[in-house]
Amino acid sequence: MAKIRLFIDHPLALGQGIALNTDQAHYLSSVMRQGPGDEILLFNGQDGEWLARIERLAKRNGEVVPQRQSAPQMDPPDLWLMFAPIKKARTDFIVEKAAELGAARILPVQTDFTNSERIRQDRLQAHAVEAAEQCGGTFVPEVTDLVPLPRVLDGWDVTRRILWADEALVGAAETLAGLEKGPWAILIGPEGGFSESERKRLCAMHCVTRISLGPRILRADTAAVAALALWQSELGDWR
Amino acid sequence: MAKIRLFIDHPLALGQGIALNTDQAHYLSSVMRQGPGDEILLFNGQDGEWLARIERLAKRNGEVVPQRQSAPQMDPPDLWLMFAPIKKARTDFIVEKAAELGAARILPVQTDFTNSERIRQDRLQAHAVEAAEQCGGTFVPEVTDLVPLPRVLDGWDVTRRILWADEALVGAAETLAGLEKGPWAILIGPEGGFSESERKRLCAMHCVTRISLGPRILRADTAAVAALALWQSELGDWR
Repeated sequence: MAKIRLFIDHPLALGQGIALNTDQAHYLSSVMRQGPGDEILLFNGQDGEWLARIERLAKRNGEVVPQRQSAPQMDPPDLWLMFAPIKKARTDFIVEKAAELGAARILPVQTDFTNSERIRQDRLQAHAVEAAEQCGGTFVPEVTDLVPLPRVLDGWDVTRRILWADEALVGAAETLAGLEKGPWAILIGPEGGFSESERKRLCAMHCVTRISLGPRILRADTAAVAALALWQSELGDWR
Repeated sequence: MAKIRLFIDHPLALGQGIALNTDQAHYLSSVMRQGPGDEILLFNGQDGEWLARIERLAKRNGEVVPQRQSAPQMDPPDLWLMFAPIKKARTDFIVEKAAELGAARILPVQTDFTNSERIRQDRLQAHAVEAAEQCGGTFVPEVTDLVPLPRVLDGWDVTRRILWADEALVGAAETLAGLEKGPWAILIGPEGGFSESERKRLCAMHCVTRISLGPRILRADTAAVAALALWQSELGDWR
């Protein structure tokens, strides 16, 4: 049984050979020590997972040919994660965990108390791909570029509800039980929370539901993982 | 309002001066730029949180004096986390998150597929302390030294139930709803899961409940955080 799973940005169909790019060829040949005739798993986020055979492989190029679909396409529920980027390692971590936990879209947002002015969107997207390769999923969430929170909220489609992990609610009793299924977005603030004007604006939006994540103050990365797990367990594809 | 929170391994009582050790004095003077007269928060895991005044402070020593109790002692629910240590950064992460999420005790266990033969217990304990300082808690979970899983199970008190995040259940429907309150331990396996003999043994224990964490395969660190969050939300102190 082939173990290597590779995301490939190319349509997947029976017998349709796909040229490997330099990175992919290097990874398969030099890192994973694969060669012609070996089998790997491919997915592109749309066509499910395919068992493919390595047809040719050199250090910088090669070709793989899909043999049969090994798993159907499985999209996660319609859940977005919005978070304020924090230190690099913890931001990477949030993106990896969101992909593993089945977020459909990941939106770094810039808030009044966010330190970073920009992110490396390409690096974060690569983390999401790697997490999808690792967790056996066939879907890769899009990581958007950093957008200011007001601009996100200005254009908000109110049929998507917002689950706001509000650190000011620490200790209050709130659960996800009884919330409606449908499109949701989880919103996690930066360390230091949201500013007064941001809080006012969020509280005034009817599509916003506030939840508490217990009596201890969680770091932003912990809060993101906890909220994603609770949502998936209550409203998502964990049951 | 004082912001610095310091764990201190010493009884805390009104007016009873406490000598700072070298690390603490260095941290307060050189890192946090504090000086005599400044106020900090102290906790020792037993006596709640105390507002204390810095009486003397040099680079390598000093004295702090508790002025009044600023928060009562708050112990987490009786929840243990057992996990098989993985790569260093991810093991550190699990300990930090378990402390934040309110685990009462953290037990690294050695399983058939665990790579590491030993851990740096002192380093992991320091991570738990740091997480407690950061999350506003007054409790620090004990991190035990690495123990082989069979030895842990041999001496198991069956009144403590085990919540086993069983990766072989991926995709099966399971929730924590309806589980009994009381002492629990969450068990997270290593990458590669548990061996056949370990699985048999766990399945034969009446105090073991298996849960699924959704259709994607989670890394061990993700599974630990997700399971802790679900438990706290359903059976713990989040409601």
